[in-house]
Amino acid sequence: MPDAGLYFIGRIRTPWTHRSDCPKNSHQAHEAQAVCNVEIDHAFQPALAGLEGTTHLWLLYFMDRAPRNLVVQVPRRYGEGRGTFALRSPARPNPIAMSAVRVLDIAEGRLTVIGVDCLDGTPLLDIKPYFASTDCHPDAVVGWHRARTEEAAEEAPPAPG
Amino acid sequence: MPDAGLYFIGRIRTPWTHRSDCPKNSHQAHEAQAVCNVEIDHAFQPALAGLEGTTHLWLLYFMDRAPRNLVVQVPRRYGEGRGTFALRSPARPNPIAMSAVRVLDIAEGRLTVIGVDCLDGTPLLDIKPYFASTDCHPDAVVGWHRARTEEAAEEAPPAPG
Repeated sequence: MPDAGLYFIGRIRTPWTHRSDCPKNSHQAHEAQAVCNVEIDHAFQPALAGLEGTTHLWLLYFMDRAPRNLVVQVPRRYGEGRGTFALRSPARPNPIAMSAVRVLDIAEGRLTVIGVDCLDGTPLLDIKPYFASTDCHPDAVVGWHRARTEEAAEEAPPAPG
Repeated sequence: MPDAGLYFIGRIRTPWTHRSDCPKNSHQAHEAQAVCNVEIDHAFQPALAGLEGTTHLWLLYFMDRAPRNLVVQVPRRYGEGRGTFALRSPARPNPIAMSAVRVLDIAEGRLTVIGVDCLDGTPLLDIKPYFASTDCHPDAVVGWHRARTEEAAEEAPPAPG
């Protein structure tokens, strides 16, 4: 039995209808640059009031096709098992994904944004303003990711000349 | 009827047992500087593997005492009604809060962190690594907040001399 319930408040519209089409490892490559739409259900549209002049939002959405029973998993590209809480994989006990998106437009209960990586039709859970003062940590390090990046740099062939 | 279910995977231990004690508007004042603990339920402790060397994490938690039926609300300090999606108030259709925390220690299924602002015992939903490449947007602007800050600056007395 679940401990609490979620209500879907809208849907995210993206160009991707199969998981293999979705941007991968967008934390590395800024691959999620497509313009997407977010449709807010009618009852929740008044909650968009006051967003004028806001440039970035958090979208929280529900990865409803992801398994929820993996505590350790092997990422597609890395081949080494890691704990779910060390990964941004959609597979997790509560498959809530979050993306900081850039706002292009808000009109008629619809957001136009850049920065999501999910399947078309993904259920929306929440929208929050992005506060740089608390949400932005430029010096943050992900231990395994830094180690991997350094390793790749060492393996790269020397620059020509 | 809810559209999906959540499972609580641990609890956040903080010094605050009443809502009035919790840090307020922590996006403005960096008020949430207390050292807090996060207790992970035994079944989910293996999911912490691979976090060595990681400096910042996202905690997602469930504000289980917040009302869920407010689409417009008047923040305590500001006195002007705004849409829920323009605020970080815990009162929202899905009362999922998120905080980027600094990691001090991870040991025996327990995280020691700085950066949460919730009541003692708040249910934990998820832990994710913080990736500066996608999570950090230093130029993000919250429209109403900037307007308010500029207004306050105009109202401030001129600097002496």
